[in-house]
Amino acid sequence: MRATVMYKAGDVRIENVPDATIINSTDAVIRVTRACICGSDLWPYKELPATEPGRPMGHEAIGVVEAIGREVRKVKAGDLVVMPFAYSDGSCEFCHEGLQTSCVHGGFFGVGVVGGAQAEALRVPQADGTLFSLPVREDDALMPSLLTLSDVMGTGHHAARAARVSRGKKVAVIGDGAVGLCGVIAAKRLGAEQIILLGRHPDRIALAKAFGTTDIVTERADAAVERVRALTGGHGVHSVLECVGTGDAMLTAIGICRAGGAVGRVGVPHYEGIPAARPAFYNNVAVSGGPAPVRAYIEELLPDILEGRIQPGRVFDRVVGLDGVPDGYRAMNERTALKVMIRF
Amino acid sequence: MRATVMYKAGDVRIENVPDATIINSTDAVIRVTRACICGSDLWPYKELPATEPGRPMGHEAIGVVEAIGREVRKVKAGDLVVMPFAYSDGSCEFCHEGLQTSCVHGGFFGVGVVGGAQAEALRVPQADGTLFSLPVREDDALMPSLLTLSDVMGTGHHAARAARVSRGKKVAVIGDGAVGLCGVIAAKRLGAEQIILLGRHPDRIALAKAFGTTDIVTERADAAVERVRALTGGHGVHSVLECVGTGDAMLTAIGICRAGGAVGRVGVPHYEGIPAARPAFYNNVAVSGGPAPVRAYIEELLPDILEGRIQPGRVFDRVVGLDGVPDGYRAMNERTALKVMIRF
Repeated sequence: MRATVMYKAGDVRIENVPDATIINSTDAVIRVTRACICGSDLWPYKELPATEPGRPMGHEAIGVVEAIGREVRKVKAGDLVVMPFAYSDGSCEFCHEGLQTSCVHGGFFGVGVVGGAQAEALRVPQADGTLFSLPVREDDALMPSLLTLSDVMGTGHHAARAARVSRGKKVAVIGDGAVGLCGVIAAKRLGAEQIILLGRHPDRIALAKAFGTTDIVTERADAAVERVRALTGGHGVHSVLECVGTGDAMLTAIGICRAGGAVGRVGVPHYEGIPAARPAFYNNVAVSGGPAPVRAYIEELLPDILEGRIQPGRVFDRVVGLDGVPDGYRAMNERTALKVMIRF
Repeated sequence: MRATVMYKAGDVRIENVPDATIINSTDAVIRVTRACICGSDLWPYKELPATEPGRPMGHEAIGVVEAIGREVRKVKAGDLVVMPFAYSDGSCEFCHEGLQTSCVHGGFFGVGVVGGAQAEALRVPQADGTLFSLPVREDDALMPSLLTLSDVMGTGHHAARAARVSRGKKVAVIGDGAVGLCGVIAAKRLGAEQIILLGRHPDRIALAKAFGTTDIVTERADAAVERVRALTGGHGVHSVLECVGTGDAMLTAIGICRAGGAVGRVGVPHYEGIPAARPAFYNNVAVSGGPAPVRAYIEELLPDILEGRIQPGRVFDRVVGLDGVPDGYRAMNERTALKVMIRF
């Protein structure tokens, strides 16, 4: 079968690799029908040292179950499934608490012996706990939005939850990538009264407005803090969704957060210490978040997608086949594409 | 009148200063009947550069109202009152939300023109919002416990709230000072099932056990993390009360926190960045806390003190008169006293 492999920063190749097969009795193999490139894939695209035998890429997919291990009970061959970016057994104490990203038998795709989803097929460990069978057909027009349940929509929702968004709150979203835009959808969905997007790309801003953003802040650093405070009567926002992952973004997040408010961070941290430890303390600002347990959120978000109330699939602005994946990375890295979908 | 003034690290003096008087129409003046020395006073006692005209010290007190400004309505002369370590107007949006330490007209004692509480008398700004009239007599045997409502009991409770302690949870308290010990009381009161104290002073450990601690960890750093994990089935505790304020304590806090758990920090941060930004992220550990809005907690905690269900006053192991305050600082700094009460 063919799959995406990254050998070093900027070096993404489509290669023939051994077919995905059942290894453990709890595995399934899916034929991938939709996958995509994630903002987090751009970190290795910028930074990965040369590596042999290369890193299998991709962790978001919709697919059709082709085979199951002998212990798999809930998922069956032929099911159309959405695959969260982390696999999980569905039965440990963390899974029961809805924190599947900390499953004691869990892990992430594209790490170690587990393949990536930017491929024709994929072995999915812990299939019963991981995969969610969709009540639609493979060619359904909702496919792009359903694909976001793999990661970005659930991650935006996680940021909003961690930032304690609720009805009537003032919210800021830092980052106009796909996760930030899904964070806008999530904040709107949870009843935010004001949604301020910190971003500067005109096409993304247009989409953010369509999703419910009320104010745009294009400034950065101190100027951004000043602007958000001016937009919120001086005190800042109750909830900040930090969807970038840099120390500067966290510094801004803490600077614009109202006393007693919360920062939900979902950008993979590229900083050692969470900055502004003292301002966050004196203002009783909470910092939480992490890898989103998107598996826990599918049931909550799915009806809104099926019934058209939210359209996170609009974050995809380019569709490629598997051979177009290297170009897709380039386009996302150069910011000429927001998020690239791979259609098989 | 006589008051405590610190001139530099280690240099604490009792001096004659101008009498406390009403300055603003919302002030009250109280005659202090009980005050104390705080663990946070030890930071300037270790670090304060030489300063003229010296820093008035103390922010915890019980006293009798002697005079009120013409706009004061709720508090009246003769009332026995407990004074939170921060003053607040009681009417702004933050006060209404129970975050009096962020009051828009609030501030802290011993800063700028506001005096300190280790003194015969004290001007209290925003008297109506700040002071809480006690339903007991001045010589009541409950006075030590009531005095802790000024700071340490409310601060321990804030740590427990920030760390999301609730019934059945596994909890760790880092620090065996007065705040840590009050954190144990708070965790027990909120229903914690297991309470692990990280500390190493035998007398404090004995008190912690009396307050409900189930396990003691005397190790530090990685060894402490390993020990707490061993005591909790490998996963760590749901809630960590960080009552020290050093980077090392925060590092341990994040290391012993269960995935999805919370660290409540009330130790004044002596670190620039909150350490372990990545481990905290990957485990979805929340970090919150700050200066405790103790004014908000008095009504909740007072009945438990009045009815003897909690006895936070046991943290006082030495009583001095005003002249004994410099010795009190020395004793707390050398850790021969846990917490010193000043009786007038």
